[in-house]
Amino acid sequence: MNEKIRWLRNKIKSLNLDAMIVSNPINIKYLTGIEAEGILILARKENFFITDGRYVESVNSLLTIEDEIIVENIQSLSKEDGENIFLFCENVGFEENYVTYAKYKEYMYKYKINNLVETEMLIEKQRAIKDNEEINYITKACNITDDCFEYLLNYIKIGMTEKQIAGAVERFFRINGADGLAFDTIVASGSNSSMPHAIPTDKKIEFGDVITIDMGCKYKGYCSDMTRTIFVGEIKEEVKTIYNLVLKNQKQTLKEMREGIVCKNITKMVVNDFEINGYDLIHGLGHSLGLEIHEIPNLGTKSEVILKPNMIITDEPGIYIAGKFGIRIEDTVIIGKSTGIPLTKSNKEITIIKGE
Amino acid sequence: MNEKIRWLRNKIKSLNLDAMIVSNPINIKYLTGIEAEGILILARKENFFITDGRYVESVNSLLTIEDEIIVENIQSLSKEDGENIFLFCENVGFEENYVTYAKYKEYMYKYKINNLVETEMLIEKQRAIKDNEEINYITKACNITDDCFEYLLNYIKIGMTEKQIAGAVERFFRINGADGLAFDTIVASGSNSSMPHAIPTDKKIEFGDVITIDMGCKYKGYCSDMTRTIFVGEIKEEVKTIYNLVLKNQKQTLKEMREGIVCKNITKMVVNDFEINGYDLIHGLGHSLGLEIHEIPNLGTKSEVILKPNMIITDEPGIYIAGKFGIRIEDTVIIGKSTGIPLTKSNKEITIIKGE
Repeated sequence: MNEKIRWLRNKIKSLNLDAMIVSNPINIKYLTGIEAEGILILARKENFFITDGRYVESVNSLLTIEDEIIVENIQSLSKEDGENIFLFCENVGFEENYVTYAKYKEYMYKYKINNLVETEMLIEKQRAIKDNEEINYITKACNITDDCFEYLLNYIKIGMTEKQIAGAVERFFRINGADGLAFDTIVASGSNSSMPHAIPTDKKIEFGDVITIDMGCKYKGYCSDMTRTIFVGEIKEEVKTIYNLVLKNQKQTLKEMREGIVCKNITKMVVNDFEINGYDLIHGLGHSLGLEIHEIPNLGTKSEVILKPNMIITDEPGIYIAGKFGIRIEDTVIIGKSTGIPLTKSNKEITIIKGE
Repeated sequence: MNEKIRWLRNKIKSLNLDAMIVSNPINIKYLTGIEAEGILILARKENFFITDGRYVESVNSLLTIEDEIIVENIQSLSKEDGENIFLFCENVGFEENYVTYAKYKEYMYKYKINNLVETEMLIEKQRAIKDNEEINYITKACNITDDCFEYLLNYIKIGMTEKQIAGAVERFFRINGADGLAFDTIVASGSNSSMPHAIPTDKKIEFGDVITIDMGCKYKGYCSDMTRTIFVGEIKEEVKTIYNLVLKNQKQTLKEMREGIVCKNITKMVVNDFEINGYDLIHGLGHSLGLEIHEIPNLGTKSEVILKPNMIITDEPGIYIAGKFGIRIEDTVIIGKSTGIPLTKSNKEITIIKGE
């Protein structure tokens, strides 16, 4: 049995649970390395992975005897077999934030479970603190992202469409060793940049455009996330003022992302500084990332979570002037003892490209 | 109010529901065109889309007064406002197959709902029958996929890796007008092809390899899905026999995919023919597709669904010899009055490429 499953078995014991059903595929991947449809069950003595005919071979070829996971094909599992898995298990943990209401009812019936108990993001909370291997993978994904940004500074030309630039990001990631995208790349130019979650369009890059590029790749399944806002040909005074305000807060946040700080306190600092200057922070200041692009904890105004070393969180303040433009600057940051350490390291001072 | 929302309002009335919460973002996109985090509520008189600060501007810019949808920012919605939405609504429908157990409890509390009622894939069932616009989009996605296959026949060379070929598929889709991938492309060569859901590896293409390519793109949000199994340099007799068995069943299935046929009957036909020859059908014979790559109904051995014109379903029998090779042939098919009509039209007779 690996360390992570051992940890979970101890954890559920301490919560007075006799067993646990893990349904979230990302949590299953985290615990076992398995990437297949199915559920992982930690029962009284044994661990099971219940899957179907499509995956039995590939899962069996991934696992070794040391994993101590019994792979079962759901199609050949009788109702009696199912009920036997949870024999003498009174309290069975489940993931109430992943399992649908319909599945909840199905588990109760199919496995004859008396008491399904909510486990409150048990595994997700553990995933927040990255081990060395995970840190290495995320660092590598961040390096590829930095290289991509450098590439884009020369690549982007007036007359190209936002979609074309997004396509170039994807190609760069693929060619340079990434598994793929961590999320759909955002390339938003001109007034499109005023929407934080813009989708790349056929709009062409023009002289004077603000361009927001929000991109990230995956390396061995682990994500990076970085945003830079750059300028074509010139930058207007109004825009420059806002850029510097966002940048100041981004740097201040980075310093505060250290052991012992309560998430909401960092966020409130930025919200206050924006408000003093007449602006709102309309989205979260940052989110954890790892196997998923959005993990917990967040830098939200209500988050009581205390930062711990080796959490990895984005630092991404932004200001958006509806219909005109938006500025966002974002790094992926690892929480350190005395300060946050950025894993994305691209230049974030005002950058004006010629685009010719 | 558009036709689809009008349909849903009538439908819930006929089910004695006073309101409905639509949480599945694909269903929201289908009904409204909105692509943003949030929930759609059809209340007694009005329709609401409850979202957050990140999306308010983009959703408002998409909607017109004719949509009759009120956009609310959850951050400025008091508990009282929330409760007022469902005033005089006794029975409120929800999507039990999408909504998590935790969200179910949250809806009950936040909106003070007395009775949340399961709606049994109400919207998904309606989505199964495509309208003309949807058929056009899927047809276009299928055309791009056919073109990609033709391109690959010349592109694939001995010594290339599976990952390289998967990358070429992605590039081709992008360049040729697709929005992106419908699902992660499968390129599985040699013994890797024996796993129906193989992930492309760094294995290089060799003389004598079987290569299974399962790919699809999206056009205006709508998916295509096609698999072809091709051969490099030669095909062994054992493989040829199995290929012809799969192809025979794929063509027979295509004929049977017509109005009035019960899904399970088609599947049983293939299962029987495979069994007579000593093989198993280890995955479903086909699945519907549209905005999602897997929709309902399926061609499963238990599916009692009766096929109707303008359903769009894949036809994808496969045989897998563990550790050796696999053969799958798949088309995207539209259900017709007297026969299925393939929307992917690439050659599916035995294809041997030189790869030189």
